[in-house]
Amino acid sequence: MTVRFGLLGAGRIGKVHARAIANDANATLVAVADAMPAAAQAIATDYGCDIRTIDAIIGSADIDAVVICTPTDTHADLIEQAARAGKAVFCEKPVDLSVQRVRDCLKVVAAEKATLMVGFNRRFDPDFMAVKAAIDAGHVGKVEMVTITSRDPGAPPVDYIARSGGIFRDMTIHDFDMARWLLGEEPETVLAAASVLVDPAIGKAGDFDSVNVILRTASGRQAIITNTRRASYGYDQRIEVHGSEGCVSAENMREANIEIANAKGFTRPPLLNFFMSRYVAAYANEIAAFITAMSTKTATPTTGQDGLQALVLAEAALKSVAEGRAVKVSEILQ
Amino acid sequence: MTVRFGLLGAGRIGKVHARAIANDANATLVAVADAMPAAAQAIATDYGCDIRTIDAIIGSADIDAVVICTPTDTHADLIEQAARAGKAVFCEKPVDLSVQRVRDCLKVVAAEKATLMVGFNRRFDPDFMAVKAAIDAGHVGKVEMVTITSRDPGAPPVDYIARSGGIFRDMTIHDFDMARWLLGEEPETVLAAASVLVDPAIGKAGDFDSVNVILRTASGRQAIITNTRRASYGYDQRIEVHGSEGCVSAENMREANIEIANAKGFTRPPLLNFFMSRYVAAYANEIAAFITAMSTKTATPTTGQDGLQALVLAEAALKSVAEGRAVKVSEILQ
Amino acid sequence: MTVRFGLLGAGRIGKVHARAIANDANATLVAVADAMPAAAQAIATDYGCDIRTIDAIIGSADIDAVVICTPTDTHADLIEQAARAGKAVFCEKPVDLSVQRVRDCLKVVAAEKATLMVGFNRRFDPDFMAVKAAIDAGHVGKVEMVTITSRDPGAPPVDYIARSGGIFRDMTIHDFDMARWLLGEEPETVLAAASVLVDPAIGKAGDFDSVNVILRTASGRQAIITNTRRASYGYDQRIEVHGSEGCVSAENMREANIEIANAKGFTRPPLLNFFMSRYVAAYANEIAAFITAMSTKTATPTTGQDGLQALVLAEAALKSVAEGRAVKVSEILQ
Amino acid sequence: MTVRFGLLGAGRIGKVHARAIANDANATLVAVADAMPAAAQAIATDYGCDIRTIDAIIGSADIDAVVICTPTDTHADLIEQAARAGKAVFCEKPVDLSVQRVRDCLKVVAAEKATLMVGFNRRFDPDFMAVKAAIDAGHVGKVEMVTITSRDPGAPPVDYIARSGGIFRDMTIHDFDMARWLLGEEPETVLAAASVLVDPAIGKAGDFDSVNVILRTASGRQAIITNTRRASYGYDQRIEVHGSEGCVSAENMREANIEIANAKGFTRPPLLNFFMSRYVAAYANEIAAFITAMSTKTATPTTGQDGLQALVLAEAALKSVAEGRAVKVSEILQ
Repeated sequence: MTVRFGLLGAGRIGKVHARAIANDANATLVAVADAMPAAAQAIATDYGCDIRTIDAIIGSADIDAVVICTPTDTHADLIEQAARAGKAVFCEKPVDLSVQRVRDCLKVVAAEKATLMVGFNRRFDPDFMAVKAAIDAGHVGKVEMVTITSRDPGAPPVDYIARSGGIFRDMTIHDFDMARWLLGEEPETVLAAASVLVDPAIGKAGDFDSVNVILRTASGRQAIITNTRRASYGYDQRIEVHGSEGCVSAENMREANIEIANAKGFTRPPLLNFFMSRYVAAYANEIAAFITAMSTKTATPTTGQDGLQALVLAEAALKSVAEGRAVKVSEILQ
Repeated sequence: MTVRFGLLGAGRIGKVHARAIANDANATLVAVADAMPAAAQAIATDYGCDIRTIDAIIGSADIDAVVICTPTDTHADLIEQAARAGKAVFCEKPVDLSVQRVRDCLKVVAAEKATLMVGFNRRFDPDFMAVKAAIDAGHVGKVEMVTITSRDPGAPPVDYIARSGGIFRDMTIHDFDMARWLLGEEPETVLAAASVLVDPAIGKAGDFDSVNVILRTASGRQAIITNTRRASYGYDQRIEVHGSEGCVSAENMREANIEIANAKGFTRPPLLNFFMSRYVAAYANEIAAFITAMSTKTATPTTGQDGLQALVLAEAALKSVAEGRAVKVSEILQ
Repeated sequence: MTVRFGLLGAGRIGKVHARAIANDANATLVAVADAMPAAAQAIATDYGCDIRTIDAIIGSADIDAVVICTPTDTHADLIEQAARAGKAVFCEKPVDLSVQRVRDCLKVVAAEKATLMVGFNRRFDPDFMAVKAAIDAGHVGKVEMVTITSRDPGAPPVDYIARSGGIFRDMTIHDFDMARWLLGEEPETVLAAASVLVDPAIGKAGDFDSVNVILRTASGRQAIITNTRRASYGYDQRIEVHGSEGCVSAENMREANIEIANAKGFTRPPLLNFFMSRYVAAYANEIAAFITAMSTKTATPTTGQDGLQALVLAEAALKSVAEGRAVKVSEILQ
Repeated sequence: MTVRFGLLGAGRIGKVHARAIANDANATLVAVADAMPAAAQAIATDYGCDIRTIDAIIGSADIDAVVICTPTDTHADLIEQAARAGKAVFCEKPVDLSVQRVRDCLKVVAAEKATLMVGFNRRFDPDFMAVKAAIDAGHVGKVEMVTITSRDPGAPPVDYIARSGGIFRDMTIHDFDMARWLLGEEPETVLAAASVLVDPAIGKAGDFDSVNVILRTASGRQAIITNTRRASYGYDQRIEVHGSEGCVSAENMREANIEIANAKGFTRPPLLNFFMSRYVAAYANEIAAFITAMSTKTATPTTGQDGLQALVLAEAALKSVAEGRAVKVSEILQ
């Protein structure tokens, strides 16, 4: 079956998904909507699709699924609207910055028996997929300790910080999802420490730029997440999973796999510096996974529930910092 | 300017180039030709181009350039035919297995003032390009020693061996081109040693499967090439350039950048095992470079002369093995 | 000046220090004491020194300094006795498992104006010293995040666990010292999570085998320590220090720096599997540092205070686990 | 049995061997001789041995074995003298720079049924031993290609060059020995290319500073050796052995196993820069192997014949350069 797509939002990520949909033999891009006419036009020109309004796309009989790449504060409403209209939905993370809003949204999705996939792109990175495959193949035995190092190359502008929901909801949320995926068991308790070390303006905006989080599951498995908003050496994205019989890790990616040696030493290039180049394969794979799930009528690999759980961990981390204590996930999600 | 392309040959590499041309904003694929109707049809369907005969394509007024992906023994004839018809030509290596035939062909190209780019794909590999850029930026000082390790994952069928022109013309020829490119000076002398270690049938076919070659330039720069037809651990493709002030090297590529540790040690996956996956970026880059040269009316980065010089080094290596001596390039190319 | 040594304890570590003292041009081993006559005899034979009782050594006029390698529960008493006798003291960590006992002991040392160096061997590991030197040279800018991975190859026998003081006082204590050394600022708050994942018998003995700790300093610098009692791949000892301008890390050590490639991948040997072979250079360097401090009458690089501070962090970590909250160092050390 | 040693030559290497002998439970250093009284005295003081003349040592009844660390041009004479006096001999490479002189010397050794071990230290490097062990364990299958990269950190003074016997006899000789050891089959043919790229004064002295050599055995196995007299990045010492089922390689050694990352990239320190620090373990192991062979009355791991064969390969390489052809080993060693 060919899945007929409507794209809501023609920005940076929207373009990536438009190309993936257009090049996929099992999908066709029917229409695009964007508040900026030029952005929509660019995609319409490149891939020969219609330009429609968001409402028109969600109401179109010739569209099976929508991909939501609009600003975060529109996600939950659009998901609900599309679910009610009988469309399948792929939505970039997060569903919303409020746990309550996400829960309400997921109730609508459930009531409509709609399909919702939340785009946690990192699960679709080839190296991280190879790590997960090694775990699933039993190569490390029982998972015990997950270590996630995630450092942005540079802090975003402070006005972005202000509307981002804060570092835990905006940045660590990816790592919370990775930790859940790799631990193989839901975290039960969250401990977090947070500092402002990179930019005092981030602190003035009420946020942090340097955090560490420990997650602990009921059986005692633990994950440790270390985040900072600035790494001079590039976009630092590593995972390591230690288990009863071994350990598996994924290395960073660089622009070129070369090394230059001279009297000062042996130097490899800095890391890829931008999330869209670092995760180019991941973005392509996630939308392909959605298309596959749709065209084969199978379950999507991530769901709205994944979006909720990661957000709950972010809430718990915030509370842990504020109250200086271990916070149970059940305190947030009764 | 949009370059209008005709594709001659719709096989494995033809498909790669078709997609690259179709996706390039400065190029359009007008027509494809192939002896196998199904192969041509597949490309015509995917990219909405015509199916024509080779003669029709070369004779078409609506085509500026042809890409030759037909069997090796047709290359020289097609280059000449296209050059005479005023088409620019991109031809996969080699132009021909005979030095004399290549020279004759290049004379026609020169007489017609035609553009000819020979596709030495490795020059367009991102890592090797980064190596070259490091040299050109002076990071290693004056180039002194080039080391090229090139091992195929497995030997080709013996019937391929028989029509391949032998290991020097078929496999080492890539390394000869790399050596010329990296040395920054033409090799003057060739020493080679050859063995049959992988498959006795290769020896019976009059060829070798394990060779080492030393190239020496007039100023004394040297390159060493080591080749085998079988490496259990994948497609081994490394270069290292040692100079007066440093050294630059490029590492192999793997399917995933992970490492699994257990009681037996720390294991990374084998190398990419197939030249088309190993050099996927290189193939895309080489045709893009041709399109760029055509659309900007600048010189192509490789020429027919590059094809000739690499073949001459292969001849000299063969002669070195046969006669047990250092062979001057000038003995082959008077 | 040649420093005249008495060695208290002729076990595994005692032997290491005996050889270091005997081979050092600025030191001489005068006498050894051990409850096991054969152990003392072996050292006396190898290095031509006397065998005396502990009391005799501490009371000897021909001895300037004692090295304490006896069981942990004798350390504090022997330090006090030696300090009162006017001897300089090198003592393997820990001074004692009780914070109060350590504080009392250090008061005696202070009152006697005695020299006390506590042997935190890892500070003397050449790779870790190179990390510290890189920090001190400004290569990473201001230190922000310290990551310490420390995994034992295998859990000790449960009867050792019972008298070890528990994982934080026995194992993490090394990492607490490393964290203090690398952070360049005293930790102020401790968060810890602990599990029993390796051996239920460890849990029955009231201890943990898998822990993570976050330390936070007043200015917001953080250290994260991850420990487990069992790593199938050897003795995993890594540090990484991320700062405002860069990052420095030290790799693990293996028995041989080789790699074997085959169809299964590229495999390096497991890690060195035993702390005494992993830290052979560190043990030699720490005692050499003590000899140097003594012979040049300069300060020792570590002190009794270092021993106390690390133990206080262990107490705080235990309290954090027990009470599920962030514990201030000032709660332990009023 | 305790082997009683006389040391001939108390220079740099002599000191290394003196310490190894003194610290070995199965050996004792009885006497040392050196033309420089201060050098001999230093060793006598450190290890409590006698100072005697060379003749006295060789004539001493209380000495079982001599270690020859005197200048190269005395080696053959001293070996003969010691062999005739019934002493076992350990001699640093080379026996002599003349093939004929070595052959004459070995005849004396054979006639006296004397023990002679020639010190090819690299065979005793722990990493290279691990490579050999991997081959012997069958991990790479049948050996096919050996690649040896050996680059000195800097060229020696020209007056050393003049008396060194030239790069093949002085530097490549180590690699010839490694190649023989790793190939598992005697080389039959030698091809070599040589240049002067580092220092024109070396060329004026009649020598080369940059060479490549291909060795080929009767069954077709090949080794490739690449040498230069200067590497800005340190003492570059790598081996790689490719076989029918895999490949094993040994990495270089650095002063510290750390990596510093910043905006310019990820940098590891340069290589160890001096052969005595790079091969400190190898020097210790080689003399220990001699002591073990002597004390257990077993064969030495290297012999005078190994010294001869490596020198013959050097002669063949020189001839190959001079005559521009493949030279058979049998031409040199009829």
